[in-house]
This record gives sequence, structure tokens and C-alpha cells, in this order.
Amino acid sequence: MDDKKKKRRRPDPSSDEETRLPFKNRLKPDSVILESLRDLLNTSSSSASTSKTLTLADLALASTCREVNELSLPSVESAIESLILKIARSILDGHGFSFDVPSRSAANQLYVPELDRIVLKDKTSLRPYANISTVRKSTITTRILQLIHQLCAKSIHVTKRDLFYTDVKLFQDQTQSDSVLDDVSCMLGCTRSSLNVIAAEKGVVVGRLIFSDNGDMIDCTKMGMGGKAIPPNIDRVGDMQSDALFILLVEKDAAYIRLAEDRFYNRFPCIIVTAKGQPDVATRLFLRKMKMELKLPVLALVDSDPYGLKILSVYGCGSKNMSYDSANLTTPDIKWLGIRPSDLDKYKIPEQCRLPMTEQDIKTGKDMLEEDFVKKNPGWVEELTLMVKTKQKAEIQALSTFGFQYLSEVYLPLKLQQRDWL
Amino acid sequence: MDDKKKKRRRPDPSSDEETRLPFKNRLKPDSVILESLRDLLNTSSSSASTSKTLTLADLALASTCREVNELSLPSVESAIESLILKIARSILDGHGFSFDVPSRSAANQLYVPELDRIVLKDKTSLRPYANISTVRKSTITTRILQLIHQLCAKSIHVTKRDLFYTDVKLFQDQTQSDSVLDDVSCMLGCTRSSLNVIAAEKGVVVGRLIFSDNGDMIDCTKMGMGGKAIPPNIDRVGDMQSDALFILLVEKDAAYIRLAEDRFYNRFPCIIVTAKGQPDVATRLFLRKMKMELKLPVLALVDSDPYGLKILSVYGCGSKNMSYDSANLTTPDIKWLGIRPSDLDKYKIPEQCRLPMTEQDIKTGKDMLEEDFVKKNPGWVEELTLMVKTKQKAEIQALSTFGFQYLSEVYLPLKLQQRDWL
Repeated sequence: MDDKKKKRRRPDPSSDEETRLPFKNRLKPDSVILESLRDLLNTSSSSASTSKTLTLADLALASTCREVNELSLPSVESAIESLILKIARSILDGHGFSFDVPSRSAANQLYVPELDRIVLKDKTSLRPYANISTVRKSTITTRILQLIHQLCAKSIHVTKRDLFYTDVKLFQDQTQSDSVLDDVSCMLGCTRSSLNVIAAEKGVVVGRLIFSDNGDMIDCTKMGMGGKAIPPNIDRVGDMQSDALFILLVEKDAAYIRLAEDRFYNRFPCIIVTAKGQPDVATRLFLRKMKMELKLPVLALVDSDPYGLKILSVYGCGSKNMSYDSANLTTPDIKWLGIRPSDLDKYKIPEQCRLPMTEQDIKTGKDMLEEDFVKKNPGWVEELTLMVKTKQKAEIQALSTFGFQYLSEVYLPLKLQQRDWL
Repeated sequence: MDDKKKKRRRPDPSSDEETRLPFKNRLKPDSVILESLRDLLNTSSSSASTSKTLTLADLALASTCREVNELSLPSVESAIESLILKIARSILDGHGFSFDVPSRSAANQLYVPELDRIVLKDKTSLRPYANISTVRKSTITTRILQLIHQLCAKSIHVTKRDLFYTDVKLFQDQTQSDSVLDDVSCMLGCTRSSLNVIAAEKGVVVGRLIFSDNGDMIDCTKMGMGGKAIPPNIDRVGDMQSDALFILLVEKDAAYIRLAEDRFYNRFPCIIVTAKGQPDVATRLFLRKMKMELKLPVLALVDSDPYGLKILSVYGCGSKNMSYDSANLTTPDIKWLGIRPSDLDKYKIPEQCRLPMTEQDIKTGKDMLEEDFVKKNPGWVEELTLMVKTKQKAEIQALSTFGFQYLSEVYLPLKLQQRDWL
């Protein structure tokens, strides 16, 4: 509070800024920081080219784990037709019909450390039509296959909600059509976006990126402060070009707005992306595509709480209920830039800007310490242990206590200069 | 269900489409529909130029009602300085200090039918510093004024959350700084966006619109399927140009995605905008700016439930807690295109795609029948009465029962052809 009192006495904002803003005087010229970012880019793009090739087959897991691929519309169409022909043959042979559906339950999931993501094992279960307990589900499965076949023929995209409304009488509620849709993805061995069923878009992107959205070329340095809405259908995104040195993945929109208004990407060439909270499928696919095509390092700026880390893990290792598609949805090697629990003391975040963790927060934190994807990174374990010990959390916005632009003018540049990521 | 059985027997999709899609055969050529839209545009732009001039002063309400205006940063800065000088003088004169704060309570709100929006009356209350019950609030008010003054000097935008974090010890929780921020808007007589405090963006826009966002020119016909994210700060939006015949305001993103993918705006020149649910301030300001500068009619596509109508009313007449700024936030003369309760039978929406209204829905519907903004439109009263009577609601997506593109290929064109809006 001393600083604030001083400030009130001295109205000139420029002279007291040096003393009021911790660490500002440690900042080196931008050229020095940029040099360190170029190093990061070089290491990242060389490691990306090696790690990219690692697959289930390399680990001799191809026969015991199941993964789906991006498939073209004609491939999806013919996969459906083959499946239906096989069923027709089975019926004609007098065997009736049944779907062989991959199990998506937790017991059938596996974290593979070498891949750093969750994958689905190969257990399947039969879904016969001539069985009272599965007749509804097998009917729904047939209907979903028929609807997807229509979408392929028309080459249009729909939402899960649209899909549900095409046959409310059969589906009854949307959880049923949604769940079978995931089954169908697994059965056909393709991603959900290959089926042309998309989720509502939530994310935005701004900065040093040019790409095509449904045939239109988009220059993300010329998207003002609002940025470009990330397209819901990744298959119509292409032609990515960039002179950025890194991708800055931001958890929430308040921080995104600050960086977009300050055109942070002009001072430190980067692409800024956010899903405005929980990562949605479209943003996850978009991030992965950027990382893969542009070979850029990804630095994450999230709240210093268990959910910030959880969000980071969804981008990095996938969510459990879509583990069958982790290869396409996850972005490898995301670095945890901040706000990290150790930053709170290091950057002298005042006590009143920190929040006490609730019982639930602490439990979530402790649970995460048991997760494989945290355990494999000793730095993360250390930070999370500190969080659970101090029982304190903080939002990115807590940095505003040193001034609205402290995030873009001091905190982030210093983090980059010090290569302070894990 | 007959239709669906027929369909299964006849695999050729083109021949049965006419019989399967109600009303498709009533559609006239697009040129006819476009003609009727041009008429709408002409009536709308002439009425806009007259209705636009109607103010509180015209109704002799200027002295009993209070409104705020868009102010430039230097004007806000000097308004704060005048206020503080007045207070300093009062202290020096031995009278201590006190803020005279407009009351924002429900009792001080008024619906003005001629303006078709809610406004704030002129009641104010004193907030003296030397009083135990108001000392905290007057201190917070002073601090917020100081922070806003800083924002003006730096010419940057921040979120309410940023503002809160600049002095957590004083504000304690964000509702307190948020509430005083609205008080400060009213006291200074300017909009909240004039104070450079912005809300996170949520909306997207696509179609026949060109505008500048923070200096970058954006062509919304070239924004792919994702569209352009609506900027959080309306004061950096300008240079709007359009050859559209109308603005299509869409409640939810599923419908938005359908229309964006089908490039509906190329067949019927329009601008498509959505806030993805509850209208946020940025989207409301953006819609109003489009309506005012481009003089385009606004047609709304919302769910057929009380909340769809409520959302329409927030765009049109404002929300109660920001009634002091209704002049800047509301868009006059929005037409209710659909989905209207009478559409459910008219378009033969199958029973299973309609949802029963809950007790709460029915109560909300009945409450809305008592609202002035509904009562002044007999067509709306009739529709809402029908909804409450049939106790049925339906989402826009229910139209998918006739095929995924029924919305863009039959329903909307027919609505436009028949000039079927209220």
C-alpha cells in the first residue's frame, strides 16, 4: 500500500513508474529478447520435426490402441457404405445385424508418456439389433450413419444440435445422439470433424498469421482489436503463413484484449490465440494446425489455479471423453509461461490480489499431482506442489495491480527475456 | 413420420424434396423476394431518419429523465476534473465533500412508449464522505474517478475485472467496483464505453459489411465461415459501408453457422450478426451503430420461447440495469421475423420437435405479456398469448427436422417473400 500512497502524492505518472513497477528496470532492449525467442523457435522447430513422427505404431501400440484420422468426405462416405453393405450381407446370411463399437469408457483409456497424451485402448462391445437392451442404440447408430452420409453427399457442416433435431422422436434427448456420434467416429476410424459435425466456435486469433477460411484469405495482423473468430470447421482452414517467433496461448479474454489492443504481436512477433475459457474443439484443432504447419513454440498464459493447469492439459494431452481423437486434438510441447504459483512472490503480487483456494480447489490440485501428464514434468510438479502448499491462487488480471499495461509491458517481456517457461 | 418412411423407400433425394419440404413449392424467384426487401429498406430508411431525431427533449422529458451520451476522452477527462475541483472547493469552504449520485433503482426507471425504451428518471441521492454509512462508497467513487482519469490520459481500454484488480483491498469484491462504475457513468453523463471500460466480446458478424476496427479495414464478405469477432470497443469502429438490404439478427450460433456456411448473404444481400445467446454490450452497440449509420431494417431470428422474445427486447428496449444508457445501447424498430409461436403450426413443425414449456417458462411468458414493450405491439401480444396458451416452445434448430438447410433454403426465403415479420 506504500506505493499507492506515494502515487497519490506525486501526480506525474511517468516519473514514479520505474519505482512503482517491480522489475521494469531489469528489462533489456527488445533486440536481446528477440534473440532468445529465435533460439526457442529453432529448438522448437527441430524437435517438432522429430516428435511429430512418433505414433502408436512406433511404440508398438498400434494393435492394442485405437486412433482416428482426419478423413476426406468421399472416404467417410465409402466407409459408411462398406459398413452398411457388410450389415446387409450379415442379414441376408441369416445372422441379423450388430455393430462392433469401440468402448470409450475410462477403463479403456491409457496415458502414453512417450506421446504425452491419452489414447483409447482396443476394447469393443457388440451392439446387436435383436436384443432388447441394445435395439434402441443400434437403431440410433444406423440413423446417425444415414445422416452423416447425407452430410457428406451435400458437403455441408452442421452442429450436434441440428443432428439431434432431425429425429427427436428417435433420439429423445441430445445426449443420446451426441454419444452415438462419438461411437460412429470411433467405428469409422475418423475424427468428428471429418463427419462434418462441428461445435460452435468460441475462440479468436490475432497477430502474425495469414490463413484461408473457406476460401477467403485472412490477415490476422489486420483484424483490429476484435480479432478473427476461429472457424468452426478446421477442414476449410488452410494456407497458413507466419513470420511469428511463437504462439501465445491465452486462457481468458481480458488478457487477450489487453494484448490485442497493445498490438503486442508487433513488438514481439507472435500469434495470440484464446478460447475464452474452456478449450473448445475448434480452437484446439486450430492451435494444433498452427503448431504443426508453422512449427512454432507454444507458450501458455493461464490463471495460477488448478483450472488454469487443467486447461493447459486439455490443449496438451486431450480430454478424457475424446481420447479416441487425442492425436488430432492435442498440441504437443506446450510451455507453461505463467502465471505460475512461484510468480506470485517473485513478482510481488500483493496479498489482497491473491485469492484463498477453496477446499475443492485444493482437492483438484492434489488430484492433478497424481496425473501422469503433470508427473512427467518435474517443474510442473514443483509449481503445483507450491500452489497446494500456499493455498493461494491468482488470476492473470491480478497483474493489473501494477497498472493496466504491466502484463504487456513488463511481465511478458521479462518472462520472454528470462526464458522463464517450463 | 410418414415422410420419413417414404424417404427410406425412395433413395433419390432430389425428387422427393418437393413433397418432403413443406412450402418449398411456394417460393418465388429470388428477384421477386429481393424486390420486396428493397421496399422494406426504403420504408425503413425513411422512418429511421424521422424516428432517429426523437429524444427526451422532444417529449418534454429532458428535465425529469436522465440520459448519458457518448463522450470523447478529453471531454470525460475534463468532466472528471471539474467534478474534483468542485469537491476541492467544497472542502476548502468547510463543507466537506459529497457526491450527488443518480439513483439506478427500479423505482427510478420508466418505459417511454414514444421512444420504445426504458429510461432513468432524475432522482439522485447524496453520498457524503463524512457519514459512516457512505464513507466506503464515496471513497470507492473517488478511486474509480481517478482510475478512469488515468485510462483517458493513456487512451487504453480495460475490462471491469482489470479495474477491480487495481485496488482489491478497497473494492473487496468486483460487484462493488462494477456498481460504482455505473454510478460514475451516470454522474458524468457519459456511456460506460466512453469511460474506456469494456466488456469481453462475444458476438460475430459476417456478410455485406465493410468497417474499420482500430484502423484496420475489415470486409465481412471475406471472413470465411468463422466471421469477424465484434470488437469490444465501439469507439474504434467506423467507416461502415454496406450494400445489404437488411440486417439479420440471429439469437444463437448454430443458426449463424448454417447461414454463414451457405453464404446466405450472397443470395439475399444482408449482414448477419449474433451475440451467441444473451446480448452483450459490444454486440448491442455494434448493432445500433449499423442500424443508425447504414439505415437498414433489422429482422430478428430467435427461438420461439419467452427467452427468445426477452433477448429481442434487450436489443430493442434495453435491459433494466443499464437503463441510464438505453439511448446508446438500443436499436429501434427490430422486426420479429421468427421463429414465432404461430410458425409452429404454419410450418408443420412435428410435435416431437416442440418442447413443453416449464412452469417457469409459462410464468416468464405471462410476465412479459405485462411488459410495456410487448403491449405496444399487438402482433407480439397475440403471438405470446398463443405461446402461453399452447404451452409449447421450439428452438430455431427444430427446422432441421426438414433437412439441415431448410432454414436457409426455404424458411427464411419464404418469410422474406411473404414479408412475414411483426
